[in-house]
Amino acid sequence: MKFTIAIIPGDGIGPEVTSQAKKALDAVAEAYDHIFLYKEAQIGATAIEATGSPLPKETIEICKNADAILFGAVGNEYYDNNPSAKVRPEQGLLRLRQELDLFCKIKPVKAYDNLIYNSPLKRDVIKGTDFVIFRELTGGIYFGDKEISKDEKSAYDKSFYTIDQIKRVAHLAFKAAQRRRNKITLVDKANVLATSRLWRKTIIEIAKEYPNVDVEFMFIDNAAMKMILNPKQFDVILTENLFGDIISDEASAIAGSIGLLASSSIGEKNALFEPIHGSFPKAKGKDIANPLASILSAAMLLKHLGLDEEADAIERAVEKSIALGITTKDIKRKTQTSTSTSKVGDFIADYI
Amino acid sequence: MKFTIAIIPGDGIGPEVTSQAKKALDAVAEAYDHIFLYKEAQIGATAIEATGSPLPKETIEICKNADAILFGAVGNEYYDNNPSAKVRPEQGLLRLRQELDLFCKIKPVKAYDNLIYNSPLKRDVIKGTDFVIFRELTGGIYFGDKEISKDEKSAYDKSFYTIDQIKRVAHLAFKAAQRRRNKITLVDKANVLATSRLWRKTIIEIAKEYPNVDVEFMFIDNAAMKMILNPKQFDVILTENLFGDIISDEASAIAGSIGLLASSSIGEKNALFEPIHGSFPKAKGKDIANPLASILSAAMLLKHLGLDEEADAIERAVEKSIALGITTKDIKRKTQTSTSTSKVGDFIADYI
Ligand SMILES: CC(C)[C@H](C(=O)O)[C@@H](O)C(=O)O
Ligand SMILES: CC(C)[C@H](C(=O)O)[C@@H](O)C(=O)O
Repeated sequence: MKFTIAIIPGDGIGPEVTSQAKKALDAVAEAYDHIFLYKEAQIGATAIEATGSPLPKETIEICKNADAILFGAVGNEYYDNNPSAKVRPEQGLLRLRQELDLFCKIKPVKAYDNLIYNSPLKRDVIKGTDFVIFRELTGGIYFGDKEISKDEKSAYDKSFYTIDQIKRVAHLAFKAAQRRRNKITLVDKANVLATSRLWRKTIIEIAKEYPNVDVEFMFIDNAAMKMILNPKQFDVILTENLFGDIISDEASAIAGSIGLLASSSIGEKNALFEPIHGSFPKAKGKDIANPLASILSAAMLLKHLGLDEEADAIERAVEKSIALGITTKDIKRKTQTSTSTSKVGDFIADYI
Repeated sequence: MKFTIAIIPGDGIGPEVTSQAKKALDAVAEAYDHIFLYKEAQIGATAIEATGSPLPKETIEICKNADAILFGAVGNEYYDNNPSAKVRPEQGLLRLRQELDLFCKIKPVKAYDNLIYNSPLKRDVIKGTDFVIFRELTGGIYFGDKEISKDEKSAYDKSFYTIDQIKRVAHLAFKAAQRRRNKITLVDKANVLATSRLWRKTIIEIAKEYPNVDVEFMFIDNAAMKMILNPKQFDVILTENLFGDIISDEASAIAGSIGLLASSSIGEKNALFEPIHGSFPKAKGKDIANPLASILSAAMLLKHLGLDEEADAIERAVEKSIALGITTKDIKRKTQTSTSTSKVGDFIADYI
């Protein structure tokens, strides 16, 4: 079959990890006789340097017309340390989410038995952990009005949600729960925020349509705690944009495999796949970044295209590389020597 | 010496733990020949039931006129599950913070050697952790406009900060860093939020007055991750209200001692001391809640009053109780039998 895949490598280690994912996709194309038409596009700091805009029009067009999008990372230190910069790399990603209406970011978190040694958590705390986070991605404080006042003496950000925004992501989460262990945890701060109370009300209503799903409410502060004390208790976590950002990254840390976690961002028409790690500017160009999260993003992308067997082939190759210790420094065992980004990519492609 | 201490037990396990702290204070009064005049006052759900208001005027008066305030906890499940309730227990605490202008909540997090076994984190990750969080407490999304629309179809919350609000808490944090390891981590989301960019700009300015303090910027999502992967890297964490709420609770979980952590909330004229744990409604009245956090809050309170030796006496008694295994279920070792809330309180008071 023939598919168009948009590739937007972005900043920092984005380019080097996505190019390993591309190797894996190439290997799949060859082994399973598909044609993948890659359309490369710019985003983030790289795009600002080249075009002045963090999200050139061309990138939006390429993404809209692709069957799926493989994304790297955005952000770099120059902008982080210059709070006055008007144009920022992250705006590229945020606008892309908005343009394509990618309203839900889905992130599975699973403690892999052969990576548990790498978790900062004790074995008995983390073992058996298996949950998925549904984060609303086009609302909340990310997209509300925001401004630093003219005199630069005050600033505000507005968080805003409509019931419809809440409903569509909630239905996805409830359906996922039905395919899993029938439990949803809504993470919010309903004891303080009006938007959280709207979430809670809406979820109480929607829950009636899914009588077999247990619904639990948890404040974000408490959830941040429980995530470490007892991550096994979660099945599907549903939450708003900002809380989802925080809890997702925290969740990534517990499994001992940040360099391995991928996410999908889903809209009605488009879908984007990316590693959960960031642009990690310090590792840029050093050939040391772990490419597995990007490679597994490509596997997720194939599943989205209906190519389940092909996705499995990638996942098996990743497992093999870990089992053989052909891994970058971040997940290697003490007794193993580390392998470079590109060599890990080569191994995976060969194995496929 | 003679001091007036306001005691506001609040909801859930609040009353039972604060009454153990009172026992400890009584013991101190006797041993060191002080007079503590207790003024008890209502707050939270308990106050709503009794007076209709989560923060009766009398409570504000009592707190304003006290030398220090010992606080229990607020919140209960009835309100959590009824997002439409207009009056809520937590409003009591939020208004009290506002009325007394308690602009900074300070929370020390330390891995105690003899409690490390109780941490969900591996020993080598947590050992040596010692940092303190400075959370701004009277601004941000907690106190901005918020509303569910009349048609109940949308809602918003506004986060708002002025430079002056940022400055006063920042100076406290920088001064603390100078007394510690000279490092500050500002936790924000400056790649998305305008308020965070104002924080970053302001901190960059203030840092010039403290040339010996290293300033580091970290996004909240990254901080939530680093907190688990490498908590030792932190010295002083400075952050806004909501991020402080989340990161504080997460931080409490790593040390294996939630039932032991206390915090102070500081204003120009008043100071409030409280356990970091919540009202834990499920344990209410069962005499199983860990009273140590409340007892250690009382120790913090004594230090605030200049009674350092007396505070040490409480801390020593707490350490003794842990060493002897006279502890509630949550921190007992597997081989120990647990002791009830009130018996732990009795032991501490006797030991003092
Ligand atoms: C880069 C940044 C704007 C983004 C976010 O906060 O959403 C990232 O942290 C993520 O989680 O995808
Ligand atoms: C009870 C609640 C309103 C409060 C807060 O969010 O500030 C609590 O979680 C805290 O951290 O003191």
